[in-house]
Amino acid sequence: MPRWEPAAEARLLDAAVALFEERGYDETTVAEIAERAGLTKRTFFRYFADKREVLFWGAERIEDLFMGAIQSAPPAASPLDAVALGLEAFGRSLEGQGEVAARRIRIVQASPELSERQLIKFASMADTASRALRSRGVSADAAVLAAETGMTVFRVATARWLEDTSDSTLPQLIAEAFAQLRAVASA
Amino acid sequence: MPRWEPAAEARLLDAAVALFEERGYDETTVAEIAERAGLTKRTFFRYFADKREVLFWGAERIEDLFMGAIQSAPPAASPLDAVALGLEAFGRSLEGQGEVAARRIRIVQASPELSERQLIKFASMADTASRALRSRGVSADAAVLAAETGMTVFRVATARWLEDTSDSTLPQLIAEAFAQLRAVASA
Repeated sequence: MPRWEPAAEARLLDAAVALFEERGYDETTVAEIAERAGLTKRTFFRYFADKREVLFWGAERIEDLFMGAIQSAPPAASPLDAVALGLEAFGRSLEGQGEVAARRIRIVQASPELSERQLIKFASMADTASRALRSRGVSADAAVLAAETGMTVFRVATARWLEDTSDSTLPQLIAEAFAQLRAVASA
Repeated sequence: MPRWEPAAEARLLDAAVALFEERGYDETTVAEIAERAGLTKRTFFRYFADKREVLFWGAERIEDLFMGAIQSAPPAASPLDAVALGLEAFGRSLEGQGEVAARRIRIVQASPELSERQLIKFASMADTASRALRSRGVSADAAVLAAETGMTVFRVATARWLEDTSDSTLPQLIAEAFAQLRAVASA
């Protein structure tokens, strides 16, 4: 009977991120990640299908939160404002993971395989945002445009966050990027 | 001494697009493209490095036009308006190629290899737009955001153009998508 391991997922994530940084993603095995976390390979596979999935741990929960924040945006919020609120909620939950979040993103960006998985995830988030907007009565065309634009602003804000030397939080940088979009859109 | 072939590039493009549609991109050889165009393989290689490059013929000239249109936008135009004017000029020049333009895009989208080349081209266009905006006095951060957002709006407009059953032209759909972005951004 499988034993429940307290915080196994978080331990495996920490171990994986550390090993990917030290040895590179391709050079790290599941056995090494499990060992570093003080767990067995068998326990690893109880939680994750492969080493790639460790890096995307929590993505589904965060996507639910993202969708919920868009749907519960104030009725007067514009479609783009609603997406901005969703992405700020998303950003807060990334920040809640502490400094491991930024390290995770850097590892993903350094690997073509992981970057491709990330692109698919962004496309799925755009789709989620679009569906959430439609449930608010936004037309299909406008929903796609607001969702795609929102994901672009998010990508720009995340890049700034990774480069940032100031103490701005990710949600602050997301809010600032949306404010900047409003500024560059008006003459 | 190489003989100059009138309109060789356009003939090779037409032949390549027709063959890629009939047989698929991967299954078509340079020899077949040249033969269909009534030219030799040698002539093909005088104009293009490989079969992939045929599909991107004219991209550099169009990118110059894109940059020029952003730089020469009215001084009062917002950064996003300037990018919109650049993309409308780009769209007009695609439309000038007639129906081969849409077929070219469909072939590119059907092939992972070509889609990747297209992504790189879009990134290079975003970079061009960003540089053009900076030459108008826009700050680096705002220029990147306006350029990336502009490319997203362009991508949405192009997708609509390919699906479109109305008689809207690509430049019209681009202008409409930018107008729609302004609408979804305001409460």
